[in-house]
Amino acid sequence: MTLFFMIATETLVSLFLETRQHTENICKPLEIEDYVVQPIVDVSPPKWHLGHTTWFFEEFILKPHKPGYQLFHEDFAFVFNSYYENVGKRVIRNDRGNLSRPGVAKVYDYRLYVTNELKDFLFEEISSELEEILLIGIHHEKQHQELLTTDIKYILGNNPLLPKYNDSFLENPVQEFKQKWILMVEGIYEIGHHNPEEFCYDNELGRHKVYLQGYKISNKLVTNAEYLEFINAGGYKDFNLWHAEGWDWVKTNNISAPMYWHNIDGQWYQYTMQGLQKINLDAAVSHISYYEAFAFAQWKDCRLPTEFEWEAAQKNFEWGSRWEWTESAYLPYPDYTKAPGAIGEYNGKFMVNQKVLRGGSVATSPKHTRPTYRNFFQTNLRWQFTGLRLAK
Amino acid sequence: MTLFFMIATETLVSLFLETRQHTENICKPLEIEDYVVQPIVDVSPPKWHLGHTTWFFEEFILKPHKPGYQLFHEDFAFVFNSYYENVGKRVIRNDRGNLSRPGVAKVYDYRLYVTNELKDFLFEEISSELEEILLIGIHHEKQHQELLTTDIKYILGNNPLLPKYNDSFLENPVQEFKQKWILMVEGIYEIGHHNPEEFCYDNELGRHKVYLQGYKISNKLVTNAEYLEFINAGGYKDFNLWHAEGWDWVKTNNISAPMYWHNIDGQWYQYTMQGLQKINLDAAVSHISYYEAFAFAQWKDCRLPTEFEWEAAQKNFEWGSRWEWTESAYLPYPDYTKAPGAIGEYNGKFMVNQKVLRGGSVATSPKHTRPTYRNFFQTNLRWQFTGLRLAK
Amino acid sequence: MTLFFMIATETLVSLFLETRQHTENICKPLEIEDYVVQPIVDVSPPKWHLGHTTWFFEEFILKPHKPGYQLFHEDFAFVFNSYYENVGKRVIRNDRGNLSRPGVAKVYDYRLYVTNELKDFLFEEISSELEEILLIGIHHEKQHQELLTTDIKYILGNNPLLPKYNDSFLENPVQEFKQKWILMVEGIYEIGHHNPEEFCYDNELGRHKVYLQGYKISNKLVTNAEYLEFINAGGYKDFNLWHAEGWDWVKTNNISAPMYWHNIDGQWYQYTMQGLQKINLDAAVSHISYYEAFAFAQWKDCRLPTEFEWEAAQKNFEWGSRWEWTESAYLPYPDYTKAPGAIGEYNGKFMVNQKVLRGGSVATSPKHTRPTYRNFFQTNLRWQFTGLRLAK
Amino acid sequence: MTLFFMIATETLVSLFLETRQHTENICKPLEIEDYVVQPIVDVSPPKWHLGHTTWFFEEFILKPHKPGYQLFHEDFAFVFNSYYENVGKRVIRNDRGNLSRPGVAKVYDYRLYVTNELKDFLFEEISSELEEILLIGIHHEKQHQELLTTDIKYILGNNPLLPKYNDSFLENPVQEFKQKWILMVEGIYEIGHHNPEEFCYDNELGRHKVYLQGYKISNKLVTNAEYLEFINAGGYKDFNLWHAEGWDWVKTNNISAPMYWHNIDGQWYQYTMQGLQKINLDAAVSHISYYEAFAFAQWKDCRLPTEFEWEAAQKNFEWGSRWEWTESAYLPYPDYTKAPGAIGEYNGKFMVNQKVLRGGSVATSPKHTRPTYRNFFQTNLRWQFTGLRLAK
Ligand SMILES: [Fe+3]
Ligand SMILES: [Fe+3]
Ligand SMILES: [Fe+3]
Ligand SMILES: [Fe+3]
Repeated sequence: MTLFFMIATETLVSLFLETRQHTENICKPLEIEDYVVQPIVDVSPPKWHLGHTTWFFEEFILKPHKPGYQLFHEDFAFVFNSYYENVGKRVIRNDRGNLSRPGVAKVYDYRLYVTNELKDFLFEEISSELEEILLIGIHHEKQHQELLTTDIKYILGNNPLLPKYNDSFLENPVQEFKQKWILMVEGIYEIGHHNPEEFCYDNELGRHKVYLQGYKISNKLVTNAEYLEFINAGGYKDFNLWHAEGWDWVKTNNISAPMYWHNIDGQWYQYTMQGLQKINLDAAVSHISYYEAFAFAQWKDCRLPTEFEWEAAQKNFEWGSRWEWTESAYLPYPDYTKAPGAIGEYNGKFMVNQKVLRGGSVATSPKHTRPTYRNFFQTNLRWQFTGLRLAK
Repeated sequence: MTLFFMIATETLVSLFLETRQHTENICKPLEIEDYVVQPIVDVSPPKWHLGHTTWFFEEFILKPHKPGYQLFHEDFAFVFNSYYENVGKRVIRNDRGNLSRPGVAKVYDYRLYVTNELKDFLFEEISSELEEILLIGIHHEKQHQELLTTDIKYILGNNPLLPKYNDSFLENPVQEFKQKWILMVEGIYEIGHHNPEEFCYDNELGRHKVYLQGYKISNKLVTNAEYLEFINAGGYKDFNLWHAEGWDWVKTNNISAPMYWHNIDGQWYQYTMQGLQKINLDAAVSHISYYEAFAFAQWKDCRLPTEFEWEAAQKNFEWGSRWEWTESAYLPYPDYTKAPGAIGEYNGKFMVNQKVLRGGSVATSPKHTRPTYRNFFQTNLRWQFTGLRLAK
Repeated sequence: MTLFFMIATETLVSLFLETRQHTENICKPLEIEDYVVQPIVDVSPPKWHLGHTTWFFEEFILKPHKPGYQLFHEDFAFVFNSYYENVGKRVIRNDRGNLSRPGVAKVYDYRLYVTNELKDFLFEEISSELEEILLIGIHHEKQHQELLTTDIKYILGNNPLLPKYNDSFLENPVQEFKQKWILMVEGIYEIGHHNPEEFCYDNELGRHKVYLQGYKISNKLVTNAEYLEFINAGGYKDFNLWHAEGWDWVKTNNISAPMYWHNIDGQWYQYTMQGLQKINLDAAVSHISYYEAFAFAQWKDCRLPTEFEWEAAQKNFEWGSRWEWTESAYLPYPDYTKAPGAIGEYNGKFMVNQKVLRGGSVATSPKHTRPTYRNFFQTNLRWQFTGLRLAK
Repeated sequence: MTLFFMIATETLVSLFLETRQHTENICKPLEIEDYVVQPIVDVSPPKWHLGHTTWFFEEFILKPHKPGYQLFHEDFAFVFNSYYENVGKRVIRNDRGNLSRPGVAKVYDYRLYVTNELKDFLFEEISSELEEILLIGIHHEKQHQELLTTDIKYILGNNPLLPKYNDSFLENPVQEFKQKWILMVEGIYEIGHHNPEEFCYDNELGRHKVYLQGYKISNKLVTNAEYLEFINAGGYKDFNLWHAEGWDWVKTNNISAPMYWHNIDGQWYQYTMQGLQKINLDAAVSHISYYEAFAFAQWKDCRLPTEFEWEAAQKNFEWGSRWEWTESAYLPYPDYTKAPGAIGEYNGKFMVNQKVLRGGSVATSPKHTRPTYRNFFQTNLRWQFTGLRLAK
């Protein structure tokens, strides 16, 4: 983790408090039971997210740095650690949904306790190194806000009663403009984060040159209408469009449409945060895997942009409603080095067999994304608001 | 299902109401979160038990027989059916713990609604055939009361915080008498249920003769002290004591003690309904699989009794604190025939690759067991209060 | 292993040599490649059977008892031990088909070496205790002859080229008589082996009384014609006929006919030792699991006999072309005790979660079966020549 | 597949015949049994390689193009197709080792038949399009020669008898020079195949510019001596050195050394084509996964080169004894487009979740590799002669 930017303590404190509050706001529509379940390994119980983001501040700031700090509960590190091997044992991931205790009320107590302890601590002098960790903690929580949202969608959207989340979370904004191709000329482009006044993760740092061949990239995300054409043209039945392992995935899981799509009496519906609704044809397609994005692009005689093509062109189009699958594998930038210790586990250890997604989504927290932000997921995952933009 | 015995309507109503109430009493110590989780496939979420026992009355009595009955919720049959293939789709078993909805409050509403509807219905005239189904429904709920108790123990006892259930559920009564061998002479014995004034399941019916060789059976359950000797003598490391598939089970699952036993700094503890406690050496061993019961008996140069030996001898010893593994496979009695339709699925379809357990346990509901009662489980299961009695 | 019967040394030697020869005769039609493969875990490569039956004589007779005996190869015990935990490490079962070495020629060398060494040894005086082990070794090899035959059928019958084995092995003799019911009266019957002049396994010993209710048993095995009616009546689609775990087995494995049946353009064929042939309607059905035998009997409003019913009645009908599934679980007889050491692993450790089959089959070695013989398999297995006889 | 280079018919014929012969030479040391087994899913039986490379010529040249061509056997396409979805059903990959038929002699007959038929056909005029397919077929067979070699090593090296292959295949040549760092300056480099007189695969085509930051790359492969230091320093026990999924792989598979290494009484041995031998400390490490290569580089505070860095620098060092893991994911070059039909399945459909390896190995066929050659494997595979070269 190289150095970040300067920020006034007051701003930092209010950013911290805002973030803590926003997480809890996301949970407002939930019943207590919704906090507890883990229907698949990738989806964590909401109460786990609440505890885990809290544990991060306790483990990396309060415990090592605040004099006389008392742990809220000595077993919580065990329960709420996720994947940080440097910080002791952890509840293995698919066990999270088996834990009824600590209960939701206790987890909120834990949040309040840590928030207050940290707030107090922040008004004392803190080092710029600590400030950095705090900022990571805040952005870590922002990242979990998105997961919290998509995990809630999964929990409700896979319940046979299909309950709605609320009326205000709008996931299908319409792109009200015509599709056209943006032309990008061959040459050298600069890639990576470079604004010293803005937070970023270590995986974006090390601004460097890349050479791009000339290419075209669409100003518009692929819509549900276009994706429906692909389905109707037999896209899910033609192995020539798919990677070998994508085709295995289709066969093994009987995939024939994006996640949350339901065909009822010949009519397509989508589970949304407002419950089951007719497919909105003008909205951008969402909840597709990389395999599906790739196959769709093949079918269109196009391709997915690389993350460099995307970054070089992004000023020329609107983005932010879907995480856009790119063709790029998630790899370190030329000067990348893992930070030592647990913080170093944040990004580096995932840099194999995943794909980069660029942009942001309707579930991304306010101010959490930026043109250089590198999101990443395994190629088969669909529970995020993922979509695609074509290149050629 | 052959015919049962006569019972006054009033008695029946009060038995019904008592049973409904008792189920809810078992849940009193729970937090809402405890109602939701399913840590292993054999353990169901408590709210599922609450709903499923209710669904039984709705599905088999109210819906087909009460004129004008309105279903509480049309999707609940889907959610709360367990294994009755004759009654439509069901939530597959290891999905139960993924369902946050219907919530706990809604499930209690469902219970109240069905209890009241049924109570009203019972005060009208009901046929003796319906009375039989009602009795099965009541005893079905009593059976689930035991599962509810043991599932709660599993949920709490596998939580890293090891919370206690309550202070009053005593699972380790001491057998305050000396071990001795009861001698049973060779000859013909009568086996099976024969009291027309007492309820029983169809698998106990068809009283018939069996020929038993002379045998000895212990008056006392095997104690924790004896079982500890077996552990200390290397019982879990000597494959000669085990069935081949038992030995595979030991190796695959790294078994070295009964379920809920923890060795902390060389001292053995047991998770009980009151939390973690030192092993009570005088109590009967509990939470062991058939494989373990068999291996222990081999080590003692004894054997497990058959279910017939147990039934023939049971007047001569105390029983009821542990389900006692027998050597008998769970098979139909000579005249057994499956009842037609869904009720016929109750017992018959499980009569393969399971072992009979006799007796009852500290978790068995009041008046739910009897000398002819045939309980049955797969040979590897341990989450019930299972123990053993030796024969030779 | 209690004592057996007297036998002249000469008879014993010729029985031994005959048996060794017969095993090799079974392999005559094979190509070298056929000796090597293991398509499923239950099927062993023919060369493994050749080596394993040889190893038995080496391990239990020559090595401990013949003065100055030199092992043929010190690693062969590792390669050819099967499941005898008392005799060191073993190649785990589903690895047998991964071993190209020792090659077939070397395995035949091994056979010759051990056969000769043992023949020499037998002409010296041997103790009656050794005679017993020798007899077990001979019968062990006879048992493997049947497995060898059925494993060869599996290897050839699951090859896409469907090669035939030979022209002389006739697996579908016709029962040329009418079906009728044999009536057996209620009362006490004697069960178990009792002829001191005939070899038997320890699991048949301990002749004892059982009490049987009156019953009827068919004089005839169920035929392919009858089984086809069951298929055509939707037997594989009606869960009411099946055990719960049988139904899971049907669904998981897409079972819709006996093993080796192929439906080609609406016509049923069966792979036989002579290659693919039209179903012989008059032959006894073969290659069915216990689950299928049970479901068929349910559909006929009959049941399977217990092993005791079978043994008590067997003089009244022909048997020996199919192993007949019984309703009895494989359990020890009242006085059964496991022999100490490796020989004790022969039978006892399998006495859980298997079913007894009685009779014998077209693949059973000459003189290897008898009225008290207890064969046993898991309920899902079908690669033996298994069939059924109805009772009621 | 864009166009290739001109080649005289005679040269082509002799290249074809040479290649066919070389495949059979590789198999000379085998016993028939060695041709049959498939110990893991990635390893194919040698007879399958013999048949599959033959099938390629039959399927793509003789069958569609030679007038009046008679298939050798109509079921062989089913048996010997590998993954070409466009060409009908195929024997699923982990079933190959279950097929004893067609036998080895028959497969050699098949080879001879197709070789002769094709040789005859080649002396007639053939189109340049056919010439291209023929060249692909030849190089396809060369690729399988390497797999054949490494699969044979796996089959013999995982047999408990550890038989040797032959005396002449030397897998551990020593790099007799000192390690130094080659300095490469920042700037634009040209990547991809560009020699119109040399065969290449479609995945190398589309020569294009890339921008590289300045870097250093070692002139020498990492040796066994260096790798042993890593082991002794606890490299396999420090999760900080590993990717998260690499660490899971280490834990799940109990990895603690390269494949084929055995620690016997504290001394390290390696199974080689000449049997078990002491580790040659000066030889390049081999049979490691990408995960191990990455962890080793982390431990050295270095990294793996990208495939572009490797290609740009390769004139400055010796290569060809180990396939060298690079940091690059296997992705299409900018202008890559999949050829239509079955030939298009050759490369494109594998371009996800694999890593590029560069160089070649002791098992690579003569003239089969080149500076632009892009080999690719999943990150956990080790049965190839894989090694690594450091960069920084
Ligand atoms: Fe996190
Ligand atoms: Fe139930
Ligand atoms: Fe054996
Ligand atoms: Fe190939």
